Amino acid sequence: MNEQLLLGNIRGVLIRLEETIIFNLIERAQFQHNAKVYDPAEVAEATGGESLVGYLLHETERIHSRIRRYTSPDEEPYFTDLRAPFLPLLSFVENPIKPNDININPDIRKVYEGEIVPYICRPGDDGQYGSSAVSDTSCLQAISKRIHYGKFVAESKYLTHQDEFQAMIDARDADGLLEAITDRAVEKTVLERVRLKAQTYGQDIGGDTTQLKIEPKRVADVYARWIIPLTKKVEVQYLLRRPDDE
Amino acid sequence: MNEQLLLGNIRGVLIRLEETIIFNLIERAQFQHNAKVYDPAEVAEATGGESLVGYLLHETERIHSRIRRYTSPDEEPYFTDLRAPFLPLLSFVENPIKPNDININPDIRKVYEGEIVPYICRPGDDGQYGSSAVSDTSCLQAISKRIHYGKFVAESKYLTHQDEFQAMIDARDADGLLEAITDRAVEKTVLERVRLKAQTYGQDIGGDTTQLKIEPKRVADVYARWIIPLTKKVEVQYLLRRPDDE
Repeated sequence: MNEQLLLGNIRGVLIRLEETIIFNLIERAQFQHNAKVYDPAEVAEATGGESLVGYLLHETERIHSRIRRYTSPDEEPYFTDLRAPFLPLLSFVENPIKPNDININPDIRKVYEGEIVPYICRPGDDGQYGSSAVSDTSCLQAISKRIHYGKFVAESKYLTHQDEFQAMIDARDADGLLEAITDRAVEKTVLERVRLKAQTYGQDIGGDTTQLKIEPKRVADVYARWIIPLTKKVEVQYLLRRPDDE
Repeated sequence: MNEQLLLGNIRGVLIRLEETIIFNLIERAQFQHNAKVYDPAEVAEATGGESLVGYLLHETERIHSRIRRYTSPDEEPYFTDLRAPFLPLLSFVENPIKPNDININPDIRKVYEGEIVPYICRPGDDGQYGSSAVSDTSCLQAISKRIHYGKFVAESKYLTHQDEFQAMIDARDADGLLEAITDRAVEKTVLERVRLKAQTYGQDIGGDTTQLKIEPKRVADVYARWIIPLTKKVEVQYLLRRPDDE
């Protein structure tokens, strides 16, 4: 098996991404909800129909596509009208997953803007629109990468349980696949670790107070309610569409 | 005094920025030095003369200028050919410092690329050019904001020691000003807090090892050798050029 697909290596990537996601959520939570940044009506004239966050995300992806972000099999863009990369500094890493067109970023953006932000930020408007939107862009990118890494997880699980999985794929048994990829013990470990990280990174170190920057349980809830279920959605989609070429 | 200039409030901003800087340095340190990303020869044809980091920083600033980042008195761009903001969602906050043209980003970029990155990253080339450059852009922005916040520090100190400072300004006494703004006890506290934060954020939480992601002393050294001295440079420049209009 390609070493990128070894479960220990996949877990290492996901654990490292956890830290990026948690820190970005802590950064976002220092600002209030600022609902205006998600409302196209506020800036549509200047942006051609997007909200402030949509504009910033789009422009950021346009730049990142130029330096080859989206040719990587673990990156999916939110927007489709991006330009080809110019980056000639090619470092070739073998793509260990099957070709696929799975991209659930529309779902991710919807739950991020509509549910995650209101859940982790204080309500209200503090006028910090630019900073909030910059932070949102980083959160959306990190969360998308983590969720689409489900393709690697699915391929790894497929290769280690090929007969069992292929039978369910042939039977279009989405529920069976969902059950087969679910490991409740691992999920519990992830949630506990996320809570502990959020508590550690969110503490006021060397300061006068013991106030936390974000409620650790809420960060774990973001994983439990949205990140883990959407990762599993990617895994099931990947398996159902996996070309059976072996 | 404008409440943004109260020393307690300034300290709060600097402490919060510390966390952003430290986390960004930890993110950068997961990749190797990757010297190519700082070398214009690698991509100059596509970027018009800039290195990969320069290209990404420039493009990022072009976007952020559109959403009004650089009209804020605590933000200075690295590039000058930026467009005017379109952002109509204006939230007006009074500017508590004097008009000035102080921007030491050329110094910051030079020491960041030439000294800080080689000091915090493992040597070598791991091919992670895009990720390194994205991370560099965030580091450069966060460090620049922290250092230019020296203008707020300087104005605050000026207003509380007006006669003493004005006499040194009138005498063009840069050394005297540097000595007057230096508080060795506070610097020691900052360095100790930075070390503790780097140790806390860089630990492997809930993992199998106790390996740190970055050597905490190195992060404190980044403050001691570069961030604090450059902040004081901004403070002295600000004071020397401060219009005496009171």
